[in-house]
Amino acid sequence: MNRFVLCSSLFVLTGLLSVPAASVAAAPGGQHADEVDPRIGTGGDGHLFPGATVPFGMIQLSPDTAMPDFKHAYKWAAGYQYGDPTIMGFSHTHFSGSGHSDLGDVLVMPIAGDVKLDPGDEKVPGSGYRSRFDHATEVEHPGYYAVTLSDYGVRAELTATQRVGWHRYTFPTGKPAHVLLDLRPSIYDYAGKVLWSNLQVRADGTVTGCRTTRGWAPGRELCFAMRFNQPMTSRELYNRETDLLYKGFKGPGNQPVDQNAQNGRAIVGVFDFGDLKQPLLVKVAISPVSEANAIANLDKDGQGWAFDQHRDEANAAWNKALAAIDVDGSPTQRTQFYTALYHSLMAPNLAMDANGDYRGPDHQVHHADGFNFYSSWSMWDVYRAQQPLLILLHPDRTVDFVRSIIAAQEASPFHMLPVWAYEGLETWCMTGYHAVAIISDAYVKGIRGFDADKAMHAMVSTATYGDYGDLADYMKLGYVPIDKEVEGGSKTQEYAYDDWAIAQMAKAMGKNDIYNTFEKRATYWRNVWDPKTGFMRAKLSDGQFREPFDPASAGYGDDYTEANAWQYSWYVPQDVAGLVTAMGGDKAFTDKLDQMFDAKVDPAIFKDVEDITGLIGWYAHGNEPSHHIAYLYDYAGEPWKTQQRLKQIMDNEYGPGPAGLIGNDDLGQMSAWYIFTALGFYPVTPASTEYAIGRPFVPRAAIHLSNGHTFTVTASPMDNDHPYVGAVTLNGKPLDRVYLKHADILAGGELHFTMQAEPNKTWGQDISARPTAMSPYTH
Amino acid sequence: MNRFVLCSSLFVLTGLLSVPAASVAAAPGGQHADEVDPRIGTGGDGHLFPGATVPFGMIQLSPDTAMPDFKHAYKWAAGYQYGDPTIMGFSHTHFSGSGHSDLGDVLVMPIAGDVKLDPGDEKVPGSGYRSRFDHATEVEHPGYYAVTLSDYGVRAELTATQRVGWHRYTFPTGKPAHVLLDLRPSIYDYAGKVLWSNLQVRADGTVTGCRTTRGWAPGRELCFAMRFNQPMTSRELYNRETDLLYKGFKGPGNQPVDQNAQNGRAIVGVFDFGDLKQPLLVKVAISPVSEANAIANLDKDGQGWAFDQHRDEANAAWNKALAAIDVDGSPTQRTQFYTALYHSLMAPNLAMDANGDYRGPDHQVHHADGFNFYSSWSMWDVYRAQQPLLILLHPDRTVDFVRSIIAAQEASPFHMLPVWAYEGLETWCMTGYHAVAIISDAYVKGIRGFDADKAMHAMVSTATYGDYGDLADYMKLGYVPIDKEVEGGSKTQEYAYDDWAIAQMAKAMGKNDIYNTFEKRATYWRNVWDPKTGFMRAKLSDGQFREPFDPASAGYGDDYTEANAWQYSWYVPQDVAGLVTAMGGDKAFTDKLDQMFDAKVDPAIFKDVEDITGLIGWYAHGNEPSHHIAYLYDYAGEPWKTQQRLKQIMDNEYGPGPAGLIGNDDLGQMSAWYIFTALGFYPVTPASTEYAIGRPFVPRAAIHLSNGHTFTVTASPMDNDHPYVGAVTLNGKPLDRVYLKHADILAGGELHFTMQAEPNKTWGQDISARPTAMSPYTH
Repeated sequence: MNRFVLCSSLFVLTGLLSVPAASVAAAPGGQHADEVDPRIGTGGDGHLFPGATVPFGMIQLSPDTAMPDFKHAYKWAAGYQYGDPTIMGFSHTHFSGSGHSDLGDVLVMPIAGDVKLDPGDEKVPGSGYRSRFDHATEVEHPGYYAVTLSDYGVRAELTATQRVGWHRYTFPTGKPAHVLLDLRPSIYDYAGKVLWSNLQVRADGTVTGCRTTRGWAPGRELCFAMRFNQPMTSRELYNRETDLLYKGFKGPGNQPVDQNAQNGRAIVGVFDFGDLKQPLLVKVAISPVSEANAIANLDKDGQGWAFDQHRDEANAAWNKALAAIDVDGSPTQRTQFYTALYHSLMAPNLAMDANGDYRGPDHQVHHADGFNFYSSWSMWDVYRAQQPLLILLHPDRTVDFVRSIIAAQEASPFHMLPVWAYEGLETWCMTGYHAVAIISDAYVKGIRGFDADKAMHAMVSTATYGDYGDLADYMKLGYVPIDKEVEGGSKTQEYAYDDWAIAQMAKAMGKNDIYNTFEKRATYWRNVWDPKTGFMRAKLSDGQFREPFDPASAGYGDDYTEANAWQYSWYVPQDVAGLVTAMGGDKAFTDKLDQMFDAKVDPAIFKDVEDITGLIGWYAHGNEPSHHIAYLYDYAGEPWKTQQRLKQIMDNEYGPGPAGLIGNDDLGQMSAWYIFTALGFYPVTPASTEYAIGRPFVPRAAIHLSNGHTFTVTASPMDNDHPYVGAVTLNGKPLDRVYLKHADILAGGELHFTMQAEPNKTWGQDISARPTAMSPYTH
Repeated sequence: MNRFVLCSSLFVLTGLLSVPAASVAAAPGGQHADEVDPRIGTGGDGHLFPGATVPFGMIQLSPDTAMPDFKHAYKWAAGYQYGDPTIMGFSHTHFSGSGHSDLGDVLVMPIAGDVKLDPGDEKVPGSGYRSRFDHATEVEHPGYYAVTLSDYGVRAELTATQRVGWHRYTFPTGKPAHVLLDLRPSIYDYAGKVLWSNLQVRADGTVTGCRTTRGWAPGRELCFAMRFNQPMTSRELYNRETDLLYKGFKGPGNQPVDQNAQNGRAIVGVFDFGDLKQPLLVKVAISPVSEANAIANLDKDGQGWAFDQHRDEANAAWNKALAAIDVDGSPTQRTQFYTALYHSLMAPNLAMDANGDYRGPDHQVHHADGFNFYSSWSMWDVYRAQQPLLILLHPDRTVDFVRSIIAAQEASPFHMLPVWAYEGLETWCMTGYHAVAIISDAYVKGIRGFDADKAMHAMVSTATYGDYGDLADYMKLGYVPIDKEVEGGSKTQEYAYDDWAIAQMAKAMGKNDIYNTFEKRATYWRNVWDPKTGFMRAKLSDGQFREPFDPASAGYGDDYTEANAWQYSWYVPQDVAGLVTAMGGDKAFTDKLDQMFDAKVDPAIFKDVEDITGLIGWYAHGNEPSHHIAYLYDYAGEPWKTQQRLKQIMDNEYGPGPAGLIGNDDLGQMSAWYIFTALGFYPVTPASTEYAIGRPFVPRAAIHLSNGHTFTVTASPMDNDHPYVGAVTLNGKPLDRVYLKHADILAGGELHFTMQAEPNKTWGQDISARPTAMSPYTH
């Protein structure tokens, strides 16, 4: 297929964004899937997977090159590292760019010839069932992946529907064909992670099973149902556990030898098909609830054997989702843009069976009535730009998302909204309760279709659960004391922002008591502001700042979450003007921003903190606490410096190849930052209706809104010689403010940027031109 | 309560059956529960529990005195040993007399004062939460148990409904009251047995959770829901695991500290109630399916707080079930009789939730439509006498039992009927496929209400599954070769009997093909008969008997299951006449029986085979292969020797105290043997309609049949001086045959035995007077 060849050929362009290239109009007819390169971020620390999925789908069917033990697993968070020489198999679940990880469920490997039952060593060909492969044989396309497994001569193709992974294996003739199913491996593997698994071959040839793992979400059960388009000639089910405590004590039992079923902690199945004359098709449905539901999912979403049709449908689903923005630019730019948009449309993931069943954070089975239940919520990341992007582009999805997190709160034994959840279960990873920001952002931007009272109840319930992250002391003292709770500094800041988000929705709903309570809490960031050092700092229970203090220090147990004082002191998105004042006014504020960006920093200082990457001075684009910082010059009268910093970031932190992401994509947050920034504006303060204006990086982008309107951003001249905004017009009228309103976009129209070689140091100077999210407190 | 005092006072009569005692008429009004002493078999190797349950109920709420590790656990198969000094707590599931074991789920302990979180050492008072107790404070009664926990001064009372265990705890005043729930301990405990557990306190105060264990049935899940009649003042949930692999890697997570929920492998909950002025009531429902179902079971079967009412209902349920037989005899005899009947009505157990959900051997959730699903099937034991007894006394139960095992077969990944199953799951313990005997026995005795075609399909499917116990070779060679499969000798014998059982039902259904196939297989016992040594022996694949051969040898890997050649060579229940002929005719046969009973055997020879107990010569009443042997004299013209041997067994192997069972009760088989034998007849060949006549041990027993008829057995004089049958009349007419027909009983009437001091060596001599189960082959 030519479009795949085109995708593949793009790969040779890897490396430099600034290659001069003629601007090319968007592909006609919305065929943007052809412009996506799923390889971006599959190397380095991007933690992205190259395999087949549909937007927000339950299945991410993708090759795994390694599933190392826990301590060495960071680089393999998505199961695949572009530099690896072998493929272990194809598993059905993957996170898209997560920092921590799990999943890699239902690993399937086609084998021609002799079967080895363990994966073996990638450095010793033939030592196990894994196979070498050549990148030249890979095809990566939205909804489709193919590779030739060279040790077996097997061509493997993968596609996906919502709940079903489809495999097409073309075996060489003359060698017996097998499919191996290994229920042992898991992303972030470690001894004892698999608590239990079972596998059975049913009378009709359907292979089903479940696996319970003690991974990131402890006690997670994942079931599956698998069918083949040709009958097995035989099959063998193995229990590979070596320390079977019980076996020796069984007495005169006589368990069948040739089994239709196996259960235990190390189950492997091998399904034999003899010498195949035609490709073997395999389809696998999963369910977080039960084998019966997995079978029902297969029956519902996986009828027939039309692999090509499903590939085309997946492609069409991506084209439809990506059609929300038509962008002009060089092929490389467009590849980066649409790949970023593709990666913004990965999560959350459908976590509900075809019959509406899903598993909640109480590990119980619940039933979704009138909505689709989604999970895979990396809240600390995605509330910043990825969810705001979806609110803009796909507000119908947002309705389901909000209903899903309210449902999760209702099922939570803690009565809390999700923090970091997947497949309905909670991991408690990271900090804050940013689900409230997503709900509030949706509400203040006019999204309805969920029960606002229930939502507000869920938000307040979450924000007042004293035993979570020492909210008890936060509510009592106005800050999180570091002698009681790690990262008390940044936690105070994050809670204050989340509280402000709650207040905004309460205000919009006319709930004044709640508004007043949480507007007050929104100012608590001031309690960790140290005017003497000029940084946010953690305080002790006695009200004193913790000593000693080193603004460069970052690490577990420190004042901040995955960051140091230089990085976290900018986090007051709800009151940037207040922060400017606290820091001594515009000049002091922008000087300090310059100082941060221009600092000489040895990256080795962060060698023990995996997430702090993509350094520009202290600025770390590889991690989320930095993401809004470049836009802060806008708030102090120097928008031209925002423009300058954004170009610096876009040039250095994003690229078109496998190493094209400087840090974890974090379920689309890194990519969504790219999309907003390329469009020229960014939601510094979700739950406000304002976007800070940066500068566009494409000559033209048309956002097709669900209300039928189109909002077009144009910029000229668009080249490296004209990096600064000279003037901005909205629908032909000069726009002096350095922010855009959500209503401006919804109304449709054209935002035009006149770009110029030198900074315009007069545009956006006036205080009234600045974003005003927290105006009641600052003006 | 006086009736409990009466039960308690019976205990002093322990030891001797032959104490002269006046015959006393049965208790009026069917209050036989008052005559049961649940302590019988709770010491020694009886493996019975003293706690509260209803007939065939899902709950067996009983004190546990120890749950030692796997290798030391045999004696604690029911969680309780009469000689132990302390009680760990009260758990909700127990097998009744099993040889191997599991269960002990949802262990609850009331604590007054300080709480210790581990059970501690029974030899070091105060070292843990366990408490000392005095037998004088115990009350054991069908459906009710009470004890005073002396370390805490807590009076604990237990009762049960079908799916709910009820606790009433009276705490001393002045000390804070707590209830501890420990999800770690388990009968037959070992490290790693608890795969996962979870515990949550719901908003309404309901405590729920599930535990998955890797016990006898691997991967078994048991859920529960618990409520208290008074509000908790506080509660603490602990994870006591010390090797939490994941904890250290969690990063900046902030899981709530004071939790409503916990999960892991070592979960303990403590629920606090302050200084209570009135008894605390606790009710616990269980479910093999889900927490939601456990809650629904609690809602359905556990409304309100009427502890006394439930105790009375449980008592009434027992009285109703025990009313099937009114027996005269001394108080000790009646206690033994009704306790044996009580223990015959324990299993199988309801394994279905109130909504009809149950878990099948495929570990999946199924739904019972129009029947109650029962599990706890010790098939190798209970097909012999316990299930035949229920077919006689409670045929309505049998319909559910047969439907349950057909449903289990339909859900089996192996398409096999249960072998040793509980809570729907299969353990594969012991040998044969004796479920077929239960079904056939029911069918030939006229029980309908199940789908006979489905049943026959299930039976044939089971008996032809080649990979089970080397059925493949059995079908090919006519025997199970010992070089392929352990215990090939006895397995051949058992399969042949089971095959005969299938043939009988096929014949009754007019399925001649199946009849012919399985009648032929029924003769395969001849393939392991060695005329040279005069014993059954295992053969090798080449057709030769295995050498060397020692008829005394018994042990794992040997020719027989839990037995030696002296014990197993008598097992041809389908063709005793054929065996008589093979052994050289009547005289040689009865001489060999005498030789077996009269042998001088050092019990130490069986010290490594736990089950071979209760020796009379080589005869081992403690284990099932011997159970029919005493009746075999009937088949060779010497019924007076059957009478003599039965008295020997009744006098020596059963007693009224905690040590009153010489071996495991095996889910009621030992007790059912006692009942039949006391009544004067025994089902040597289930799936025939004949009962071999022994001699009665009670002066009068009236069997109240479900068809409204009463069949009365009378005997006189009934004393130790008249141990032999002189004459027998059925409804006044002389009965010359030494067997009773099932139809004789169903018709009602009176079977009268005239007992005498000396043997009657003429009665039952004629070959036509003998049981004829296998007559087509032998006459």
